[in-house]
Amino acid sequence: MSLLIFGTTSFDTIETPCGTATRVLGGSAMHACFAASHFTPTRLVSIVGNDFPDDWRWELQTRDVDLRGLPTCELVKTQFWRGRYHDNWHDREHLEVDLDVFEHFDPVLPDEYRTSEYVLLGQHDPMFQLRVLQQLQRPKWVMVDTIDYWIINRRTVLNRVLERVDGLFVNDAEARLLTGEFNLVRAAQRLLTFGPKCVIVKKGEHGSMLATNDELFLLPAFPVADLVDPTGAGDAFAGAMMGYLSRHPNEIRRAMAMGSVVASFAVEGFGLERLKTITRLTTDERMSEYDAMRFVG
Amino acid sequence: MSLLIFGTTSFDTIETPCGTATRVLGGSAMHACFAASHFTPTRLVSIVGNDFPDDWRWELQTRDVDLRGLPTCELVKTQFWRGRYHDNWHDREHLEVDLDVFEHFDPVLPDEYRTSEYVLLGQHDPMFQLRVLQQLQRPKWVMVDTIDYWIINRRTVLNRVLERVDGLFVNDAEARLLTGEFNLVRAAQRLLTFGPKCVIVKKGEHGSMLATNDELFLLPAFPVADLVDPTGAGDAFAGAMMGYLSRHPNEIRRAMAMGSVVASFAVEGFGLERLKTITRLTTDERMSEYDAMRFVG
Repeated sequence: MSLLIFGTTSFDTIETPCGTATRVLGGSAMHACFAASHFTPTRLVSIVGNDFPDDWRWELQTRDVDLRGLPTCELVKTQFWRGRYHDNWHDREHLEVDLDVFEHFDPVLPDEYRTSEYVLLGQHDPMFQLRVLQQLQRPKWVMVDTIDYWIINRRTVLNRVLERVDGLFVNDAEARLLTGEFNLVRAAQRLLTFGPKCVIVKKGEHGSMLATNDELFLLPAFPVADLVDPTGAGDAFAGAMMGYLSRHPNEIRRAMAMGSVVASFAVEGFGLERLKTITRLTTDERMSEYDAMRFVG
Repeated sequence: MSLLIFGTTSFDTIETPCGTATRVLGGSAMHACFAASHFTPTRLVSIVGNDFPDDWRWELQTRDVDLRGLPTCELVKTQFWRGRYHDNWHDREHLEVDLDVFEHFDPVLPDEYRTSEYVLLGQHDPMFQLRVLQQLQRPKWVMVDTIDYWIINRRTVLNRVLERVDGLFVNDAEARLLTGEFNLVRAAQRLLTFGPKCVIVKKGEHGSMLATNDELFLLPAFPVADLVDPTGAGDAFAGAMMGYLSRHPNEIRRAMAMGSVVASFAVEGFGLERLKTITRLTTDERMSEYDAMRFVG
């Protein structure tokens, strides 16, 4: 089943309690594509600037990522973000950002992409997310991710997106911001009234929760002892989950577990460093370990 | 198998975002005893003052709680605590405390208690915890709980306690305080070098983790939509877990799941209000629901 991933492509300079990485590839689309590529070929929709190197195109192509939806804007540079994580690994400061590339962006899907059945709308301006949605012919399962900035500044458009998707990814703070409910069970129930049939609350090291009108599913996170960089962990979770789901449409819980396993690798290196090195075998081995860690008997 | 529970008995005046409760019965021993009583008779070791009502003695006795280890100090009142939870339900202020009763306290075990096989040393001054430990003849499984105050002010004695117990309960902040390690996996591994064979990190709404030298076990918390008062949730978790474990010594993971279920009831009312109303049938029903919420397939 075909998977389309939409989102940002970015060069990130990241300071964590572990060290600093300079201009490493990131962005919601990149983290999700690398994560999804362990399970299925992916159709990428994003934009890069005149500084995007061929090496990375090659890296993506060897992972069966279709780049026909990745235009290059020759006038400007690729998105850039510089940020610093505090000692608690959770709070972070945005130190510098260059978003010029999006002034030239209109996400037009290549014809072949329009019939995509599984779609991940990674975090980005909801205007763009809506534009992608409008070009899809008959998707089977669309999930959208968002962040606080869009919730605060683009709420009306975001609401239109939410009415049209099957599922929503949020973290705990975003769930609270969207609903005004502090309690996450209540917040998730409330989010279901906005349109999506399922809500996945990503709580980082504390795991994730799936809520539908019929069920709650609780998943602790795979525990990571060697945390290096949390950037993109949520995107890797979403990408791996959607990659797995596109192959196993009835296994949403197992797909989330796969998301947790792949995210646990993602945070063990800066940028895509660690995700680049893992194989399907590595993820399956960690999944067995993870299953044993959750088994109650 | 016999279970001994040691800890504080207190009257608590509690303000939460949900309302206020005045002078409700609490304390680490009370929450743990009520929780454990669904699984096994309990031997209580604590102290009360001249204001402790017969009604509560009767409540405890109907739950098969042995009160021979609960002396009354006629000179002073029972411990009193007044606290206020912030809107995040996590941070709390200690507004008032009366600990006079402990100036007259020496936890001497009735002879019949000394052969107890399962022992929960609820949070209290480690001097008292050590005193209880020294009177036990050959316990099979002793777990100790503590809080930041004792970690900071009684570290040397606490270390002696840790060298002599089988297991330790801590929350995430306490695990970090005891070890200086921010990462909880590393903190738990470090705690194992202090003496205990197992460490249980209680993370409240985020679940719990069991670490031994051979395994990690991850358990999400049973999700509570109607939170009323988090006071004593950790004690209820520990009490129910130890109660279940004393009956099923090889089922530590299931015992933790039972701890989570009973704690989820505990927070649905002020003080012991909700714990008083549940039955073994209620807990078993919620356990089935909980198992279904964690099942991946």
